[in-house]
Amino acid sequence: MAALELEGRILVIDAGLSFPEVEMPGIDLVLPDFQYLRDNQDRVEAVVLTHGHEDHVGSLPYLLREFSLPLYGTKLTLALLEGKLEEHRVRDRARFEEVAPGQEIHTGPFTVRFHRVSHSIPDGCALAIDLPAGVLLHSGDFKLDSTPIDGRVTDLQGLAEEARRGVHLFLSDSTNAEDPGSTGSERLVGPVLRDIVRDARHLVVIACFASHIHRIQQAANAATQAGRKVAFLGRSMHQSVQAARSLGFLTVADEAIVPIEEVEKLDPSSVVVISTGSQGEPLSALSLMSAHEHKYIHLEPGDTVVLSSSVIPGNETAIHRTLDGLYRTGADVFHVPIAPVHVSGHAAAEELKFMLNLIQPRWFVPVHGELRHLAHHARLAREVGVPADRILLVEDGDTVEIGETVRKGERVSAGMTFVDGLGIGDVGEVVLRDRRKLAGDGIVVVVVTVDAHSGEVLAGPDVINRGFVFQDAAEPILEEARHRALVSLKECAAQGVSDPTVLREHIRTAVRRYFFETTQRKPVIV
Amino acid sequence: MAALELEGRILVIDAGLSFPEVEMPGIDLVLPDFQYLRDNQDRVEAVVLTHGHEDHVGSLPYLLREFSLPLYGTKLTLALLEGKLEEHRVRDRARFEEVAPGQEIHTGPFTVRFHRVSHSIPDGCALAIDLPAGVLLHSGDFKLDSTPIDGRVTDLQGLAEEARRGVHLFLSDSTNAEDPGSTGSERLVGPVLRDIVRDARHLVVIACFASHIHRIQQAANAATQAGRKVAFLGRSMHQSVQAARSLGFLTVADEAIVPIEEVEKLDPSSVVVISTGSQGEPLSALSLMSAHEHKYIHLEPGDTVVLSSSVIPGNETAIHRTLDGLYRTGADVFHVPIAPVHVSGHAAAEELKFMLNLIQPRWFVPVHGELRHLAHHARLAREVGVPADRILLVEDGDTVEIGETVRKGERVSAGMTFVDGLGIGDVGEVVLRDRRKLAGDGIVVVVVTVDAHSGEVLAGPDVINRGFVFQDAAEPILEEARHRALVSLKECAAQGVSDPTVLREHIRTAVRRYFFETTQRKPVIV
Repeated sequence: MAALELEGRILVIDAGLSFPEVEMPGIDLVLPDFQYLRDNQDRVEAVVLTHGHEDHVGSLPYLLREFSLPLYGTKLTLALLEGKLEEHRVRDRARFEEVAPGQEIHTGPFTVRFHRVSHSIPDGCALAIDLPAGVLLHSGDFKLDSTPIDGRVTDLQGLAEEARRGVHLFLSDSTNAEDPGSTGSERLVGPVLRDIVRDARHLVVIACFASHIHRIQQAANAATQAGRKVAFLGRSMHQSVQAARSLGFLTVADEAIVPIEEVEKLDPSSVVVISTGSQGEPLSALSLMSAHEHKYIHLEPGDTVVLSSSVIPGNETAIHRTLDGLYRTGADVFHVPIAPVHVSGHAAAEELKFMLNLIQPRWFVPVHGELRHLAHHARLAREVGVPADRILLVEDGDTVEIGETVRKGERVSAGMTFVDGLGIGDVGEVVLRDRRKLAGDGIVVVVVTVDAHSGEVLAGPDVINRGFVFQDAAEPILEEARHRALVSLKECAAQGVSDPTVLREHIRTAVRRYFFETTQRKPVIV
Repeated sequence: MAALELEGRILVIDAGLSFPEVEMPGIDLVLPDFQYLRDNQDRVEAVVLTHGHEDHVGSLPYLLREFSLPLYGTKLTLALLEGKLEEHRVRDRARFEEVAPGQEIHTGPFTVRFHRVSHSIPDGCALAIDLPAGVLLHSGDFKLDSTPIDGRVTDLQGLAEEARRGVHLFLSDSTNAEDPGSTGSERLVGPVLRDIVRDARHLVVIACFASHIHRIQQAANAATQAGRKVAFLGRSMHQSVQAARSLGFLTVADEAIVPIEEVEKLDPSSVVVISTGSQGEPLSALSLMSAHEHKYIHLEPGDTVVLSSSVIPGNETAIHRTLDGLYRTGADVFHVPIAPVHVSGHAAAEELKFMLNLIQPRWFVPVHGELRHLAHHARLAREVGVPADRILLVEDGDTVEIGETVRKGERVSAGMTFVDGLGIGDVGEVVLRDRRKLAGDGIVVVVVTVDAHSGEVLAGPDVINRGFVFQDAAEPILEEARHRALVSLKECAAQGVSDPTVLREHIRTAVRRYFFETTQRKPVIV
């Protein structure tokens, strides 16, 4: 998410979300912190969207709870969004403004031109926005696929026109800046899938992202060419297939499709299942298959499974576990790197340099990636002649002042807002720290009832443990802890201490010391 | 760890450990389950070691608490082990039996020949063990480096001799079975490090595994050739450098070394720091540097950091975080894949096929790797002509009966034993499940004192939360939970229920239902 200010108005560019990292236990989703927009609520003009991926549109259902806004995006981007907003019951808070690639729109003081770029979802765009000092060009997520599946290449002429106008500031996708060379064309994957399906003797399952319409198209083509039917599997797969088919982005004949519930009854060699779950998501169709727990698909030796996807950083463990499970079923498994069943949707180093040469920006800010990706993209920019002092590395919360010169401004409130169940933002760093601590060594609860007047122990101490030590081993340890708590209470009584807070701290210290001596662990003690 | 039985005696091959995965919170180390050896305590003859890596010798300090055993290994393997066993005060429980590569040893009914193999630690061996049906050959961890740093290539002639004797069963390293082609020679890394150090204008830090003596040698050479001193950093680095230097495996002159404490006082351009922490371990020297928290090394723009290492699966997130932190310091950072600063120590597909062709085993069991690696190695074996029905895929706990034919036997007790602080094996799946649950949604403790006779509430209910909701948001939720608990108690009283277990369950259900309605979270409720 980026916010662009001009003449007192704010244009929001994309509004994505990310998925929790390992050290965010229990968290479902990670949103950008909307505080800056909240503080400037009256000045927010509109949201412009580059494409329909979750990391670019995923926080809109939450943003629209607080804001009622126009959304500018291409046909497929808005179509994929529509269902999500309806699910969250905020569809009426957004005014959809459909934009065709190549079109220019005006909203408040902003003039924005949308230029088509190729990516791993159709209908993606770069954005050119007129500013007093010249054009701000935002690449969106892109690659330079010269032979895209839909024949719609990145609009190099349109981009060149912006360059001739003079791109004052260029923001460009850094995801694959570490990868040398050029990213292969999406078209390379088709023949690989076709050969795998043709050679398969039994059931074939191909897993990919639900929004990767061109991949789905190629998987469906491979099925059709081998005389097989297609069954789609997974809720998001059904949604995006339906949207893409109705808008003409995906061509699969009705008679080529069978419902997933019927696959069991068919000859396995007559069908290809196209499924979600390529990132090893715990309850996804593919994970369930790998654990032999899927309702409809029961993999067996002779079946074929293709993970037509990359490994998104952070998902390595989940994907490896899914792969091991799939192998355990006896199925033949194809995945990167052992088979070329995937190409990336992001430009690699040579494409990024080509783009920088085409655009020849006066100032450059690499975007979209971890700091190491941005740093590499900056290195590439220096290699093609962008002066080092005209490249700014920015992170969440940094602002950039765009005048004749471009420089970092004051930082603003930014960061992550956690979604956990129904709660948005009620779980913060403190709660997460508690959760990590609970996870690390568990918790021990000591309960004792003391007469407020006499100091006499009326009940307990009871000592209860969760996640600290196992039952059998626990008994003697917890018994001793009970004893220590009692001793500690007696010491307090002898000293005439009766303040519950002080008593509590005494017991806690005594018990904590004992646990650490015995186990070198530090459970949370309540 | 593998156990080989012959004439009623048991020979243990390697005794490694692994590191906890994400879903093992709080766990420090993961050991193999020793139960089978415990059950057959009198029959254990000895341990033979292929090489000195943690995943091959790391559980010996724990095994030796229960067993007093002879350990057969090469010079460096035993030297690296010595310090570890002393730290754990079990050195006297092991009888060290040093073996030179090429040598044959006899212990009980076992005859074992050690054959040198090249790997990412010096002094590694394959093991050939005579069995009635022929030779059992265990490859150890290996690659076929034709130009190793120490000039000591894999003993192909020795292995060929075993093949001529007739290898009945071959167990071979599968780690890199998914990688096409051949793994590059360790020697390729030297010139890369040399160029980086030569071109650096300021401090250089090179991080690698402490046991990777040849890498350390090449890093030290690069420093010396650029006229720089070397400073070693990290406890395990100091230990292994000392052992390797004293045995002649590492050649760094005394005058080329400066203590790490003195680096601050030196001209940064006159020193190379060789450090541990290449896996992003949280408290390692490199992690501290990346967070600007290291005692002696304060990175700044112009400094150079090299991660001369691979990414071990499971460490991706930690390494990426460390990399981002290093970039944030402004240092130039070199790592795979953007610079060829590392080669693997394991044979890739072509080498594995070469080995299978050389050995021509009658039966084949791929070892050392996740199931997907074993499955790929099996595929490679089929490609070079090993019949599919003579390849066995085995996992932890499987046994293999080696007669004229080789087949799977009954499974035995096996699995993982967790080390947490001082506890070994007292944390099991139940405790881990509790910890994961605690981490997911936190815990709520409800305390209420009820008169056993009258059913009257004497104190409370008090409701305490850890890791469930944050303080500000928590108050109204916890207040309502208190109310629900009270209502639930009154309902029980009205029904004449006074059994504490039933009361407890009633309160728990009421509170749990309320929390789920309000937050869709399921904290542990005590």
